[in-house]
Amino acid sequence: MKPCEEEEAGAAAAGGDPWKECAEVAVQLALRAGQIIRKALTEEKQVSTKTSAADLVTETDHFVENLIISVLKEKFPSHRFIAEESTAAGSKCVLTDSPTWIIDPVDGTCNFVHRFPTVAVSIGFAVNKELEFGVIYHCTEERLYTGRRGQGAFCNDKRLQVSKETDISKALILTEIGPKRDPATLKLFLGNIERLLKAQAHGVRVIGSSTLALCHLASGAADAYYQFGLHCWDMAAATVIIREAGGTVIDTSGGPLDLMSCRVIAAGTREMAMFIAQEIQTIHYRRDDEN
Amino acid sequence: MKPCEEEEAGAAAAGGDPWKECAEVAVQLALRAGQIIRKALTEEKQVSTKTSAADLVTETDHFVENLIISVLKEKFPSHRFIAEESTAAGSKCVLTDSPTWIIDPVDGTCNFVHRFPTVAVSIGFAVNKELEFGVIYHCTEERLYTGRRGQGAFCNDKRLQVSKETDISKALILTEIGPKRDPATLKLFLGNIERLLKAQAHGVRVIGSSTLALCHLASGAADAYYQFGLHCWDMAAATVIIREAGGTVIDTSGGPLDLMSCRVIAAGTREMAMFIAQEIQTIHYRRDDEN
Repeated sequence: MKPCEEEEAGAAAAGGDPWKECAEVAVQLALRAGQIIRKALTEEKQVSTKTSAADLVTETDHFVENLIISVLKEKFPSHRFIAEESTAAGSKCVLTDSPTWIIDPVDGTCNFVHRFPTVAVSIGFAVNKELEFGVIYHCTEERLYTGRRGQGAFCNDKRLQVSKETDISKALILTEIGPKRDPATLKLFLGNIERLLKAQAHGVRVIGSSTLALCHLASGAADAYYQFGLHCWDMAAATVIIREAGGTVIDTSGGPLDLMSCRVIAAGTREMAMFIAQEIQTIHYRRDDEN
Repeated sequence: MKPCEEEEAGAAAAGGDPWKECAEVAVQLALRAGQIIRKALTEEKQVSTKTSAADLVTETDHFVENLIISVLKEKFPSHRFIAEESTAAGSKCVLTDSPTWIIDPVDGTCNFVHRFPTVAVSIGFAVNKELEFGVIYHCTEERLYTGRRGQGAFCNDKRLQVSKETDISKALILTEIGPKRDPATLKLFLGNIERLLKAQAHGVRVIGSSTLALCHLASGAADAYYQFGLHCWDMAAATVIIREAGGTVIDTSGGPLDLMSCRVIAAGTREMAMFIAQEIQTIHYRRDDEN
């Protein structure tokens, strides 16, 4: 048997739950990575920049990504990988029908560099281009967020449920700045916040980690999230978790989510997501699969 | 003996540490308040507005403030109090030479309303208009920040030390929106963020709790904090903690801090604080002692 067939046989043995073992391995790896990141938070760091002065990477990002991928490659040799640092190093970022792991080893790298304690590991998994599960581990608060297609979303075993708010004037909104910092991009970024505050949103929060912001959304602690300039590895795991918590994840145009488009709106209700889509102006970023 | 003399006699008995008992009581009350807030975070809330649609208050704010003040009044009958909800209800907000407790029962009320888990209790204490100690309790993460004049600052017994960064292009900056949301104020608020991002700050974070942002600053997890439209109860406890962690707390003009001015810059270094002071434009708020 080829590796692929072996896995399918294993999956069949797992009683019709073909990705159970994968999901369990993802949880174990997220916890292990979290331990490494927590320790690294106390140590001095070598910091490099990527696409801009604000787009940072550390040895820990590389170390954690290599660890996660090497374990997964050994266990699931036929699977494919899309991961932040491998992509930065030139790997193609293409989602095929093959089982594909979509990994951000350290989300919130700028926070991590500053020891600002909002840092996560994110591991998503897609098959036939459909997201099957997501695991996100908030390293410093030791909160494990998990979502499995059709099986709900949880934070440390507590079921997650999104907010049911539809009224912007009662909403708490989350967003992130994104890596581009040219004057035109900053104007659009700040203009979007202005529009939502003028629409009387209770507040806007910027915490420095897309995946953890999306986890707050999944837990009902915020009513909407939007961003331009995030990547598929920031969204993949969180998208499953939010949908399984009852939420909506769409493109910023109001159409269906495109995981490679580098833009997203997530909300507790479809009404809230559509309101945000109508209100905000587009900030253009290159697609993940164009690099 | 009058109550005041009784306390002084007690203070003398405490071996030249006149405010030791007060500081210990503050810790006990912050922990007790935190427990109440944690429980309330899981329950439905009645929300009212104060100065604007974004300036919220709940039954928990009132309940916790009343609890803290009633215990302190019984223990220290000659002391004075400045507290958020009493002030909103019409109490004068004047700092005299008397021992004065400066209290925010629930900092991050908007977060609290949304169950966004960044909420704190803040208890500061001043004598002869000088801040003696501060206690801030991060309710959901159970982190207790304390600072005592001349005795250092701590988070859960770990000594706090601010960042030594002087270069804006390596800095993480924290700010908060403030309660005023008229178009002119929003333009200034967003314009200030734009200036700092154009100066190549690594990032700006908005977490929805002034006191916890200031605690991040004290712990070295950010390099500067500035805000217009916060109150003396948002700054009092945090100011002691930051100064004892080696940081600078000044007015947004670059001059000395005025606790009643509703504006502040805090930074790990004086250079960073002065850079922010030169960069940002003033947003005018009425002073706390003018109400």
